Amino acid sequence: MNVFVSRWGEADEAGAYNLIDQAATFRGLATVKEGRVISLAVPIKGGSRGPAVPTRPAAQHFMIRDGGDYCGGMLERAGFGFADDVIMLPTHGTTHIDALAHVWRDGRMYNGFEARQVTSRGASRCGIDKLGPIVTRALVVDFGGEGKSNAIQPIHLDALKATVADGGVEPRPGDALLVRTGWMTAFKAGRADTLLSPGLHSDCADWIVEKGFALVAADNVAVEVLPSGDPDCAVPLHIRLIRDHGVYLAELLDLDELARFKRPACLLMISPLRIEGGVGSPINPVAVL
Amino acid sequence: MNVFVSRWGEADEAGAYNLIDQAATFRGLATVKEGRVISLAVPIKGGSRGPAVPTRPAAQHFMIRDGGDYCGGMLERAGFGFADDVIMLPTHGTTHIDALAHVWRDGRMYNGFEARQVTSRGASRCGIDKLGPIVTRALVVDFGGEGKSNAIQPIHLDALKATVADGGVEPRPGDALLVRTGWMTAFKAGRADTLLSPGLHSDCADWIVEKGFALVAADNVAVEVLPSGDPDCAVPLHIRLIRDHGVYLAELLDLDELARFKRPACLLMISPLRIEGGVGSPINPVAVL
Amino acid sequence: MNVFVSRWGEADEAGAYNLIDQAATFRGLATVKEGRVISLAVPIKGGSRGPAVPTRPAAQHFMIRDGGDYCGGMLERAGFGFADDVIMLPTHGTTHIDALAHVWRDGRMYNGFEARQVTSRGASRCGIDKLGPIVTRALVVDFGGEGKSNAIQPIHLDALKATVADGGVEPRPGDALLVRTGWMTAFKAGRADTLLSPGLHSDCADWIVEKGFALVAADNVAVEVLPSGDPDCAVPLHIRLIRDHGVYLAELLDLDELARFKRPACLLMISPLRIEGGVGSPINPVAVL
Amino acid sequence: MNVFVSRWGEADEAGAYNLIDQAATFRGLATVKEGRVISLAVPIKGGSRGPAVPTRPAAQHFMIRDGGDYCGGMLERAGFGFADDVIMLPTHGTTHIDALAHVWRDGRMYNGFEARQVTSRGASRCGIDKLGPIVTRALVVDFGGEGKSNAIQPIHLDALKATVADGGVEPRPGDALLVRTGWMTAFKAGRADTLLSPGLHSDCADWIVEKGFALVAADNVAVEVLPSGDPDCAVPLHIRLIRDHGVYLAELLDLDELARFKRPACLLMISPLRIEGGVGSPINPVAVL
Repeated sequence: MNVFVSRWGEADEAGAYNLIDQAATFRGLATVKEGRVISLAVPIKGGSRGPAVPTRPAAQHFMIRDGGDYCGGMLERAGFGFADDVIMLPTHGTTHIDALAHVWRDGRMYNGFEARQVTSRGASRCGIDKLGPIVTRALVVDFGGEGKSNAIQPIHLDALKATVADGGVEPRPGDALLVRTGWMTAFKAGRADTLLSPGLHSDCADWIVEKGFALVAADNVAVEVLPSGDPDCAVPLHIRLIRDHGVYLAELLDLDELARFKRPACLLMISPLRIEGGVGSPINPVAVL
Repeated sequence: MNVFVSRWGEADEAGAYNLIDQAATFRGLATVKEGRVISLAVPIKGGSRGPAVPTRPAAQHFMIRDGGDYCGGMLERAGFGFADDVIMLPTHGTTHIDALAHVWRDGRMYNGFEARQVTSRGASRCGIDKLGPIVTRALVVDFGGEGKSNAIQPIHLDALKATVADGGVEPRPGDALLVRTGWMTAFKAGRADTLLSPGLHSDCADWIVEKGFALVAADNVAVEVLPSGDPDCAVPLHIRLIRDHGVYLAELLDLDELARFKRPACLLMISPLRIEGGVGSPINPVAVL
Repeated sequence: MNVFVSRWGEADEAGAYNLIDQAATFRGLATVKEGRVISLAVPIKGGSRGPAVPTRPAAQHFMIRDGGDYCGGMLERAGFGFADDVIMLPTHGTTHIDALAHVWRDGRMYNGFEARQVTSRGASRCGIDKLGPIVTRALVVDFGGEGKSNAIQPIHLDALKATVADGGVEPRPGDALLVRTGWMTAFKAGRADTLLSPGLHSDCADWIVEKGFALVAADNVAVEVLPSGDPDCAVPLHIRLIRDHGVYLAELLDLDELARFKRPACLLMISPLRIEGGVGSPINPVAVL
Repeated sequence: MNVFVSRWGEADEAGAYNLIDQAATFRGLATVKEGRVISLAVPIKGGSRGPAVPTRPAAQHFMIRDGGDYCGGMLERAGFGFADDVIMLPTHGTTHIDALAHVWRDGRMYNGFEARQVTSRGASRCGIDKLGPIVTRALVVDFGGEGKSNAIQPIHLDALKATVADGGVEPRPGDALLVRTGWMTAFKAGRADTLLSPGLHSDCADWIVEKGFALVAADNVAVEVLPSGDPDCAVPLHIRLIRDHGVYLAELLDLDELARFKRPACLLMISPLRIEGGVGSPINPVAVL
């Protein structure tokens, strides 16, 4: 018997994405007041590790045809010139979303699928290709603003609940949670370390699951606080949310522009690349106000 | 004097993206009836060239940590195991959007910027980083359905106008145009060649500009018909739309599922990766009905 | 007890490379009559799969700085201009040498090391970094010449022994064996398939080991005949030579120029890149006559 | 008129490689006393920049099939298991040799070829594919040993000549010059900077050319001292040797083991990968004593 069996059935590989039904999407659309579109991604610079942790390689951007070629004498054949390029990047090395296959414990990932199902060929289970585009409502909580003294502390459940309550929007299943910790603001200013980060404490996990959030996205390295302070696990929130409940995590967002509008909720769109067997995807999340 | 000067000023690098104002975004949102979310991207398979033209390399998907490593004896340190990967792909080798820096003629790209501004370092002008997320209304025209006899012919302006008129939705500035030619349907069935494709004839260009479309996206290789039949230019629609008017082109979409709903318009969301100096980006476009 | 234990001890990771002692190197040097240097490698073309089998990606050659950049206006700072590039290639996708970690059977590789010691981090045992430069005598056998009727047949032991005997050079421990099958000649002419190749039959294995050859290098895909005709193993010579005895195999050499000199022996130099944990290396083998 | 015309003719792309004739190769072979083979390369570590300068990306080593895959349940089909990998590295990012196309001045490279002939497609002139394997005699000069006080100074011509004279071997055309500066010894100990390096002063250039050296190889970043101290050029020795005279430079060698033998000359073998249009190649140079 599979003790891990998901509420969406033993074959399910999509997890809490199942919660984003048409009603959730509609609820997201209904938050829009002005039609203002905001990108929540950091730039990808070739040759730079960007905000990624040191174990991940730098992004590379290679030009395979460029204007210089023509300046050097290449003719514009058939009435036009063009440029072409190749991008290479760790899927977790810039603003990204984790596939459910990204983490496991005791050899088991979400829904009891086994770590051994992730090989050199990619993830045959729970890959990022099992996650379709996310269009839903996001509740926005900001712990990173000026004058907030707790910016480099763990964000505990009471603080999270209080901040959500302050926003006045009641969470509903299929919602996303957007958490600004201030880490990215500090990183952009050259004042943050990729292995030390404010973030959610794992005591938030049960409430997040209970409220039915499909996704938690943050402006830090791991959504959760680093180091976690948990002697048994470096990333307990990952295990509780991704592994145990199929809740998605998205990381390294830039929420600074969004934060200026001080809205408790927005429409959020995240559309991962359909990488077969990928264990994550770079994304350019979009908030619409 | 710069004879190419754009209507958005001589410094403009965003082109027709300027047309997607808050009203356009709102118009897109207003088309949604059900909250149904549809991905318009083809899968990205490591090792496969997918629908890309032969001059572009295959996508590669490399695992830098996987479950097999743990099966082989690696310990789950700190209470968890994980997988990590790297994706490498030509930005134009799967479902993608062209940057305005992608094409030029006579050494000049959009707004008179020069081809020489695209070097091994990338596009210092009109790169994909100058294009923010697109959230707007799309008019959907379908020339690829069963029983349609003109699937491998050029789509001329009269046919395009008639089909748009049939849809009953009047184009407005900032709209996108989604064109299904049937090429991808044939490609998926193994019956299409990447260098031969139905598509728009360049006689559609002026009308597209006049109506204020910000983007034309299609399920084929180049939006336009290949070969173009134009003795002066292999890709005249690219030159007219991208170069002369800053109108964006997105290619290699899969519009088959969307087509089943036979809607004349939908909400379209395209969110390119923020690749600094990139001349295109892989995307997973989203239609919401 | 490790039943696989090597004659060079249970910790040995270098295999038959141990046979190439100073005497073997001297013997190689003594074959040189003219000082004529011949490259035995095929060219590496960016974007081409070359002679590699279909499961391996094409080589890619990316310029990260080039002359076109300067033509486009980049200044020669500090009194010079320069070009820089990046090469990406499957280590077995062009003329190459296999590491002992390249193959195994029943989970065991050379000297009883385990397949599980080859992970996403590379081969912690028997990687190509355990193989130093090879400078030794090679016996040259040519089955690929014009008028030779057996070019696409397996080369059986009797034929191999007869051809070596015809050459008049008695094999000595630490020698290499260079085998021309004619496959590369056919491949260059567009008349060869990467999965069908003349080559040594596995009945040659014991004699190769007994004579003390440290290396067998050939102008074909796998040194051995493909398909092998062995119902139990697709590559029995690999298992017998690499796994059971630590004898190295090098593949995809171009022996056409060398063959024109009709020498029974030559000095052979092969110097693999020192890729830590690599399971092979591209090489440019050198014959000196 | 091409004022740059080479002594080997206006079409020549090989430069001083022409000097390595059969006599030079024989002279190299004649230096061998013991048959001792020494690798002069540093290891290539995936994920590490190694001794490369900061503008070059780190090497990457990707496994596309490994033992962990089998541990996870993949079957050894057809009687064997195997590992496969891909290496990606900047050609100048580890022990390497420069192609003549690597540098230029005033838009002209060796023999008057133009920088514009090096584009995104690679070097159509003077690429590394124009350089065959080098098998020749090398004169060894050691400025890096213990107790040598000038290790971080420029090595001027008088010191170079004196050290060569001390060795007692008269240079002959086609010889190589192996220069140990001590930089790599310091780098391995974590005490060297990639932009500060002892090395040859450009006042050595004329003598190197006059003596007919085909190659100068060193254990530092650029063969020459960095910074050069020349107000007109950051790398005057590169320009004088590579550009003006087609003399090859090889860099980032590890000469520590070789130095222990205190030999004034050795056989040197360098066999660049045959990368079409490459502007350099990683190498594993071999000294034979």
